[in-house]
Amino acid sequence: MNHLISSKPIPLSHLRIQDNFWSEYVRLVRHVVVPYQWEALNDRVEGAEPSHAIQNFKIAAGLKQGEFYGMVFQDSDVAKWLEAVSYLLETGPDPELEAVADGVIQIIAKAQQADGYLNTYFTLKEPGNKWTNLAECHELYCAGHMIEAAVAYYQATGKKLILDVACRLADCIDSVFGTEEGKQKGYDGHQEIELALVKLYHTTSQKKYLRLSQFFLDERGQKPDFYEMEFARRGHKVHFPALDMVHDKAYSQAHLPVRQQKSAEGHAVRVVYMCSGMVDVALETGDQELLEACKSLWRNIVTKRMYITGGIGSSAYGEAFTMDYDLPGDTAYAETCASIGLIFFAQRMLQIEADSEYADVMEQALYNTVISGMSRDGRRFFYVNPLEVWPDACDRNANVHHVKSERQGWFGCACCPPNIARLLASLGRYMYSLQNRIIYTHLYIGSDVSMSWEGGDEVRLVQDSRFPWEGAVRFEITTRKETEFTLALRIPKWCRAEAGLMLSINGEEAAYEGLMIKGYVHIHRRWQSGDVVELLLPMQISRVRGHPLVRETIGKVALQRGPIVYCLEEVDNGANLHQIILDKQAVEEVQFESELLGGVPVITVPAQRVQATDWEGQLYQADSEVQTIPVTARFIPYFAWANRGRNEMSVWVKEES
Amino acid sequence: MNHLISSKPIPLSHLRIQDNFWSEYVRLVRHVVVPYQWEALNDRVEGAEPSHAIQNFKIAAGLKQGEFYGMVFQDSDVAKWLEAVSYLLETGPDPELEAVADGVIQIIAKAQQADGYLNTYFTLKEPGNKWTNLAECHELYCAGHMIEAAVAYYQATGKKLILDVACRLADCIDSVFGTEEGKQKGYDGHQEIELALVKLYHTTSQKKYLRLSQFFLDERGQKPDFYEMEFARRGHKVHFPALDMVHDKAYSQAHLPVRQQKSAEGHAVRVVYMCSGMVDVALETGDQELLEACKSLWRNIVTKRMYITGGIGSSAYGEAFTMDYDLPGDTAYAETCASIGLIFFAQRMLQIEADSEYADVMEQALYNTVISGMSRDGRRFFYVNPLEVWPDACDRNANVHHVKSERQGWFGCACCPPNIARLLASLGRYMYSLQNRIIYTHLYIGSDVSMSWEGGDEVRLVQDSRFPWEGAVRFEITTRKETEFTLALRIPKWCRAEAGLMLSINGEEAAYEGLMIKGYVHIHRRWQSGDVVELLLPMQISRVRGHPLVRETIGKVALQRGPIVYCLEEVDNGANLHQIILDKQAVEEVQFESELLGGVPVITVPAQRVQATDWEGQLYQADSEVQTIPVTARFIPYFAWANRGRNEMSVWVKEES
Repeated sequence: MNHLISSKPIPLSHLRIQDNFWSEYVRLVRHVVVPYQWEALNDRVEGAEPSHAIQNFKIAAGLKQGEFYGMVFQDSDVAKWLEAVSYLLETGPDPELEAVADGVIQIIAKAQQADGYLNTYFTLKEPGNKWTNLAECHELYCAGHMIEAAVAYYQATGKKLILDVACRLADCIDSVFGTEEGKQKGYDGHQEIELALVKLYHTTSQKKYLRLSQFFLDERGQKPDFYEMEFARRGHKVHFPALDMVHDKAYSQAHLPVRQQKSAEGHAVRVVYMCSGMVDVALETGDQELLEACKSLWRNIVTKRMYITGGIGSSAYGEAFTMDYDLPGDTAYAETCASIGLIFFAQRMLQIEADSEYADVMEQALYNTVISGMSRDGRRFFYVNPLEVWPDACDRNANVHHVKSERQGWFGCACCPPNIARLLASLGRYMYSLQNRIIYTHLYIGSDVSMSWEGGDEVRLVQDSRFPWEGAVRFEITTRKETEFTLALRIPKWCRAEAGLMLSINGEEAAYEGLMIKGYVHIHRRWQSGDVVELLLPMQISRVRGHPLVRETIGKVALQRGPIVYCLEEVDNGANLHQIILDKQAVEEVQFESELLGGVPVITVPAQRVQATDWEGQLYQADSEVQTIPVTARFIPYFAWANRGRNEMSVWVKEES
Repeated sequence: MNHLISSKPIPLSHLRIQDNFWSEYVRLVRHVVVPYQWEALNDRVEGAEPSHAIQNFKIAAGLKQGEFYGMVFQDSDVAKWLEAVSYLLETGPDPELEAVADGVIQIIAKAQQADGYLNTYFTLKEPGNKWTNLAECHELYCAGHMIEAAVAYYQATGKKLILDVACRLADCIDSVFGTEEGKQKGYDGHQEIELALVKLYHTTSQKKYLRLSQFFLDERGQKPDFYEMEFARRGHKVHFPALDMVHDKAYSQAHLPVRQQKSAEGHAVRVVYMCSGMVDVALETGDQELLEACKSLWRNIVTKRMYITGGIGSSAYGEAFTMDYDLPGDTAYAETCASIGLIFFAQRMLQIEADSEYADVMEQALYNTVISGMSRDGRRFFYVNPLEVWPDACDRNANVHHVKSERQGWFGCACCPPNIARLLASLGRYMYSLQNRIIYTHLYIGSDVSMSWEGGDEVRLVQDSRFPWEGAVRFEITTRKETEFTLALRIPKWCRAEAGLMLSINGEEAAYEGLMIKGYVHIHRRWQSGDVVELLLPMQISRVRGHPLVRETIGKVALQRGPIVYCLEEVDNGANLHQIILDKQAVEEVQFESELLGGVPVITVPAQRVQATDWEGQLYQADSEVQTIPVTARFIPYFAWANRGRNEMSVWVKEES
């Protein structure tokens, strides 16, 4: 096996976020989201759907009486919460939180069975049916999340209890699945175990975990079909009758061996989790074929199947991809978790190849869909992130019942809120990566980070950033002695063609064009303490158009400024946003409104609004003139919508032709 | 009870259609559709879904062994077929067809039980559960269709066997339902019995049938809720788990007493069948409150919830109305049966009030959605009539799975094909109506019709029409002696404002403006044999716009010429019809193409087509110019689409702003 050359994220313990925009999110995660979710997992949030997830573990541990309640994958909510907690603890000490986590870990450890098996649904509800319904029942998915949590907790605290639980669980899985005689040649209906096992391999250096991950990936989509075999073995029992997981193989990407998959099909979260695992394995094994498959899937997603907000999944049915260029705005699914998974995928691709296109998409998904998924107070969440909402229709037209016009407190299927928490708690891992003596800067987030190289060189890098509202970024290097390394700064696609892009080093403007490699300006020098690099990334307002094959966007534009996609909201523009047509030549204006939505730049554009005068009692009119009045369309950042009550929203807006 | 003054249709036996356009449909119904459907009902159509409907009756009659198969309302397919046959027989003799029908009637009569009960599903499958699930199981709906068939067959042939069956069935129903002690105060989940009982009353003069119809209407939506009471009584058994018919009361218009319903809610076919029954009862009883409810529902449908094609029902879920101005084109349901029901409703409103707006809608639904429902060879049918189709999406996006891009041979739920057959077989009943000495002409269809009045006056009216392709219509009167009456000719809304509208009597142009009453030119005179009235209704091409509250249509136009709505098809315009933008000021041209689709006028319009040059590998572009090339958009009549293979179609087309 050949490792691919890769850059690695910087451990959270070496990085502190100090950012005008993101510090508030980090604070929210620590002080609101994680505590709130702890309450939710313990069924103490009034008015929210019950979780019962902690209770399930307590019952399985023999600490409580009762029955399992919840989805078959309820355990994963606890694991994701624990993973988020781990990142918080890695970032900074919190003895109280750590004590709570230790308590949960004790319960989890007690719930594990003697053979290493750990899953409260099967333990409590179907003890005789373990490993009989991989297609539908998420056993390995839950195991994967527990392993991710264990690795994170061990890294944060050095405590081994949960890591031991994870290893025994992985060993249990290893004893059941594999190519050897007597083992099942199967794989899970929801990918997750694959990337988790690679993390466990990194932490324990046990190659068997990497091999097991590789096995699950290689087995997927092979003939004879595993789902159908186990379906026959269990007497055709179906767990989720609303979907046809056994036969709709593309739903879980089991329609083809993974190396042969060229387009993103089926459940969007599953696709990007799978791709993340594929990159992980390719990175460790140097498997170029696997890497090529990752690239094909990446290319298909980002050039044909992704919303401008970084959302993926065009259909509520199956929470799934549909087909190339099919990107309806009002019926979109664009699940928060899917964009988080896309970020996982992008971050891993970046490790293999520092090409800014991966970071561009990461930024796009993060600043738009992901943070749209949470309310400004950290207490309410979107599962679905549509690009156009007509609230009355959400109530009355079944095609858009899945779209909510206001964020919800919790969900029966609560995958998204803890996923947001674990992503934001580990945001530091997405900002930089290190490869030899190159420091790649992927995201411009104010931070203070320390690095050391072989030979004892130590560097501290303090980033000041005015993102996402202004493109001014400043890096100051502190080092004990002159140190040679490369600072590679991403030039985002949204500003690359703009006038005003400027790099300066120690106050002197520097040419950057010759330093560009795959979207990163590589500044190589012998750095001295106190060196300052400044970057000005002009944030012009762009009118973005969709590919002419996208039916939804033709004749329309979306406004983007920097990484932020904008939208119209009814509260600012009145109802019936579809009546607004932007003037083609008009100049957009931007003004920062510090009192609005925590402080956001608002964009205004001269526009026309179609009027409904002379229409009384008529639904159709022949040869009538379109009546319009001039209006000013007022746009806010997409992520901030739905914080001012139930109302219409639209990202894509008509433009005069 | 006070009858409302009304006009009455002319019996089919007094009318013969001789029309350039419609004679072919009449021929198709007689020689293809009805025979084909007979084969389908007998499960002899290869590749089509089995019906088993005749078999069910044979088994129930004790003539065959076997089990019931099909939907709970499978019987109604036989009844609708028999009704269509009756209209054909009333129009002209066909001993062979009559013999087949007599044979079916023998079987039906044998399947009727001693107490008059007749329903093969309950007889064969749930004999103990009769009248226990009105909400879901269509017992009275099936009875209604059988009654309609019986009335039609009796009128056509004078044979009483099936009428006796219908009366015994109605008497059986009367013994079970009513306000009297010991009877059920209930009503059917699918309206149909109401209008059928009024027909039975007309034929038998038995007032009890009218009272029973009135009872069912009055009971609907009252408290305590009948559906819930019977649901409790049957132990909460559910027949159609996919819908929630018991609790979703608006689905079957049981959310309010019918007199309080102001908007069209729920299943579209049910709404218009109910309204038809309401008009029937109002007409007989003079019930103004009931009539006002009909008018409110009519107004709501035609001014807020109807597609330009006369289609109704915006949502596949529940085949239902959704809300005002919610008229999506691609996810439309617009069931063929619903437009047929809208025609039933319109025709009845016309009887009460000869206002051309009812006939305009009748014409709109007939020439567009209804005949779109059938292929040009009479062998394939649309259930769903969308306004925009992207065939690949129909396969791959669940939101449009219900949309077919090609007509189907038969359906498991085969309501639409026999409904088209019975409508087209009785088309003569929709063309004229008589009130005292006024002959209202609602539809311009070449025909030869005889009328007689009290006093022995007889008039023969021969209509020549070049509809729907040209607006030239000619009437010649033949009468034995000079006869005084009014010929009232509808001036369709689509030409009322046009220059060139011309009326002439015996070759001399006549002023018509002063003769207009509610959209009809009333020509009153003492007519002599050989008198000729000519009407020229200019068919200009109109660019029709939707109300500015309709999201789907804003910025777009539909082309209409005369009663015909046009559409773009991929076969004429290439794929990606959404890329076509009509030039605003350009002049449309029309040319009759005799070889195309049986001969249709084709409309061409200069347009621009958005190009996808310079988009390789990009899904979004900032601040790029829209590239277009000039093209000629080629439109065909909407009803004729999908006769040249699977392809895209669009009614609403963008227009330069």
